Amino acid sequence: MITSTNNNQIKNIIALNKKARERKAQRLFVVEGIRAVAEVPGELLTAVYYVEGFANTDEGKAFLKELSSRASQASIEEVATSVFKSMCDTVTPQGVLAVVKMQDFSLEDVLGTSTGKPAHIVILETLQDPGNMGTIIRTAEGAGATGIIINSTSVDLYSPKVVRSTMGSIFRVPHIIVQDLASTIKAIEDEHGVAVYAAHLKGDRYYDEMDFTGPTAFMIGNEGNGLSDDISKMATSYLKIPMEGKLESLNASVAASLLMYETHRQRK
Amino acid sequence: MITSTNNNQIKNIIALNKKARERKAQRLFVVEGIRAVAEVPGELLTAVYYVEGFANTDEGKAFLKELSSRASQASIEEVATSVFKSMCDTVTPQGVLAVVKMQDFSLEDVLGTSTGKPAHIVILETLQDPGNMGTIIRTAEGAGATGIIINSTSVDLYSPKVVRSTMGSIFRVPHIIVQDLASTIKAIEDEHGVAVYAAHLKGDRYYDEMDFTGPTAFMIGNEGNGLSDDISKMATSYLKIPMEGKLESLNASVAASLLMYETHRQRK
Repeated sequence: MITSTNNNQIKNIIALNKKARERKAQRLFVVEGIRAVAEVPGELLTAVYYVEGFANTDEGKAFLKELSSRASQASIEEVATSVFKSMCDTVTPQGVLAVVKMQDFSLEDVLGTSTGKPAHIVILETLQDPGNMGTIIRTAEGAGATGIIINSTSVDLYSPKVVRSTMGSIFRVPHIIVQDLASTIKAIEDEHGVAVYAAHLKGDRYYDEMDFTGPTAFMIGNEGNGLSDDISKMATSYLKIPMEGKLESLNASVAASLLMYETHRQRK
Repeated sequence: MITSTNNNQIKNIIALNKKARERKAQRLFVVEGIRAVAEVPGELLTAVYYVEGFANTDEGKAFLKELSSRASQASIEEVATSVFKSMCDTVTPQGVLAVVKMQDFSLEDVLGTSTGKPAHIVILETLQDPGNMGTIIRTAEGAGATGIIINSTSVDLYSPKVVRSTMGSIFRVPHIIVQDLASTIKAIEDEHGVAVYAAHLKGDRYYDEMDFTGPTAFMIGNEGNGLSDDISKMATSYLKIPMEGKLESLNASVAASLLMYETHRQRK
């Protein structure tokens, strides 16, 4: 049992939880909670830690048995209660924490090339709210989107809050983080025939009157400022979402969800 | 200028920001930020506080001039920088803070009776996340919903985070908070002919194949546990939202948004 926060593994987990830079350098991130760890594909698990006493509960026994059968290469260790708390990002830790490898997705994965379905992509430019990003990835799975493209100035996809709010979808929705968003957009338009839509004040057509049955991508911008001029001018077309009252905009994850589910509806 | 946190007004604002009980007892809440205070109807403003020096900026001059013309009965006071910070819920206060009266909406307001439109209501049962509640109210305005019914065990509508995430919609979307949600649901069904829908595993029809052109309400449950059995069994009908992949549920505000915008689409 690990009983000291001076243990190097423990120090590293605290760093992985707190620092995007560490996650990026090690290509590792942290997943907390019994249900959340159960959603991690076995081959991505490098280490699993459980709180003192967990192995003596019925739930703990069943969990650890299932875990050792599907994640044979992962180390599994018991941790003293106070040390376990210090490792966790959540205020009420749920007994289990895992260190998980990042997946390597390609642009082809995001385009859904191997699925045979037309591309259905969400592009996030400088999205800042972890809850919004997590919710968009979660909804993307539900709506059958093929993948997500995120620019590097967005909130870190692997931060604890984003990972939590994806509800496991982070492992099932292909995603890439790109330095040069403009050239990625140009590539999917020119080389892959994707129509890229921006929700924009200049849009003169409502989203539910447009055709998203072909390869489609939706650009979603920063919560406060929307899409940058440089990125929005790369759109194939503008669209608008109707708004009653005096509202100036919808929440970013709501806008993305309406567009993804309209695409889902049209493709049924 | 107020220079001490021992000032009774300042102490009361801190209490209003921190305690739902105080807000409820005084029927007052706090709105922070220049844009947010600009959205408050003048007759609801009781007091406005601005940070030291704000009145000397061009933005401050214009803001305070506009404010005094539309909120003649509100007191307006300057506050020392350190005191202003202590009053604010946000980490980076934006120079202006207002104490605002709660509005008194009736069930008739929520039903939209005076608008002549069929009711389009969202019912929230024990919703816990402030961001979800704020987003639902914001989207309700955009989708033209007539009002919101919230049970008393939901997160407090007037908490700083909820108020912020409504983006001003809290002043424009009729809402009531009820102790006995079941009897309110019974009343809108029996006395007002509203069809009350629950998104539910038992639902056998997809939401976009149902008719929401008549008086309609959607029930949205707690983020972790969904609707309680007692409330979900009161639904006129169950519905389902299609989900691909392995997803078990959508985020509460996403589910509400899809249902409200489907209703908007059908009523266009």
